[in-house]
Amino acid sequence: MVGQSNMAGRGYLSDVKQIYDDKIKMLVNGRWQAMTEPINFDRPTSGIGLAASFAGAWRLKNEQEEIGLIPCADGGTSLDNWAVDGVLFENAVFQAKLALRTSRLDGILWHQGENDSFGGLSALYCDKLSIIVDAFRSALKVLDIPFITGGLGNFLGAGRYGKYFNEYNQVNDALLKFSETKPNCYFVTANGLTANEDGLHFDAVSQRRFGIRYFESYFTRKNILAPLDFENELIGIIQDRPLTKKEQGALFEIEFARGRMSLGDLEEKLNCLT
Amino acid sequence: MVGQSNMAGRGYLSDVKQIYDDKIKMLVNGRWQAMTEPINFDRPTSGIGLAASFAGAWRLKNEQEEIGLIPCADGGTSLDNWAVDGVLFENAVFQAKLALRTSRLDGILWHQGENDSFGGLSALYCDKLSIIVDAFRSALKVLDIPFITGGLGNFLGAGRYGKYFNEYNQVNDALLKFSETKPNCYFVTANGLTANEDGLHFDAVSQRRFGIRYFESYFTRKNILAPLDFENELIGIIQDRPLTKKEQGALFEIEFARGRMSLGDLEEKLNCLT
Repeated sequence: MVGQSNMAGRGYLSDVKQIYDDKIKMLVNGRWQAMTEPINFDRPTSGIGLAASFAGAWRLKNEQEEIGLIPCADGGTSLDNWAVDGVLFENAVFQAKLALRTSRLDGILWHQGENDSFGGLSALYCDKLSIIVDAFRSALKVLDIPFITGGLGNFLGAGRYGKYFNEYNQVNDALLKFSETKPNCYFVTANGLTANEDGLHFDAVSQRRFGIRYFESYFTRKNILAPLDFENELIGIIQDRPLTKKEQGALFEIEFARGRMSLGDLEEKLNCLT
Repeated sequence: MVGQSNMAGRGYLSDVKQIYDDKIKMLVNGRWQAMTEPINFDRPTSGIGLAASFAGAWRLKNEQEEIGLIPCADGGTSLDNWAVDGVLFENAVFQAKLALRTSRLDGILWHQGENDSFGGLSALYCDKLSIIVDAFRSALKVLDIPFITGGLGNFLGAGRYGKYFNEYNQVNDALLKFSETKPNCYFVTANGLTANEDGLHFDAVSQRRFGIRYFESYFTRKNILAPLDFENELIGIIQDRPLTKKEQGALFEIEFARGRMSLGDLEEKLNCLT
């Protein structure tokens, strides 16, 4: 997971049903743990991103397998911030190498571009991103790994910060051109997705839909140029997946540790599970 | 910030006034940002730790300077998990090296031991920790850097998980012995500090007090073997520090981005600041 805030996720947690599946992991301090959202805690505002429903869709196709997410996105960052040898790039490579001690790398999810949507930067987007992708693939020795990109929201021009992003259409053109010319790189449209009140960040439901599109692109190795008619159905299946007793217990333990459940209630609920 | 859950912090956010000071930074993805709590997001349960009041106390002595925190603690980890060449150790060294690109390392804060409080592990504590400290200092080329440790809570034997930690007194003895024999290593007592309902994690107020003790140890280069009579007074000064307009605006922007303030309210509040 690399890019800026819309990869990290800013959807409100209260707007969607949580996705919890102990075969979906996230990397923290170099170790795998069961995924909870927010996954990519880059800011106090981090929330729902696209990776959870991506992983949920992956699990529907891989019932016995585990998937791990490596959160490295950072809000407000430009392609220059992601330049090779910069801290973001090096941290992402380092985290991926920690993950490689126990796992296999199978895809890179990218969403970025708002901070290259002004001042003529969009004209440089394709070439700059190409260098970064080559460097990731080379540093991690995964030359053919799929690299999935997504479009910027069509709401960007209108919101509170819209005047800053007057080249977002050109960035979307660049991302599409990039995916059409670079091997194993793909583009996923943001058409039909909506924003938080800030007019900048995809809302939680849109992030769930975006994750389904990202997975479809990853799975079919194709660009996704229009919304998919099964997005909402798949989200429902993923979010309504029945929890195992072990998963229910783990969620109760989290609620207790956060001070949202008394010890008596915890013990009663755990007893009911056994 | 290295160690296990009580270094990461599990105090409830709602139990204390937040500490916000844009001269206190935290490292995320290799970049500095203004600190907000939770600082060390190792689990969905992470909350108030000792580092925020430590940094607040540091700021009272360094009015024009910035301090940065590097969160690397991970809940439930043992000294063996922290062994040299393991992912926790390597991640902490890597994050510190990223910080060194723009900063100077000035101290290492350690709290760990619950997961070495059973099965005879306490007898090995001092030697294992000594190897880790030597390796941190050597890898980061800071051979004289102060290394501050803190005691395990006296509540540990009694709580829900107490039966697992029947050597916690021996670990406290080992930590004290370690600080008395190892150069530039110090011990801070946990006497008088209290726990969440889990009987395992320091509550938020206790973490604030613990941070004051850690700072006093860092500042005086001495062990702190009893509670300090000025703990509550200092906490009040730190938490009640008047915010600048820029800081107030930043906090309003966070509330808005989290969906807890409308756009109209945000703009009205920002207007009132100018």
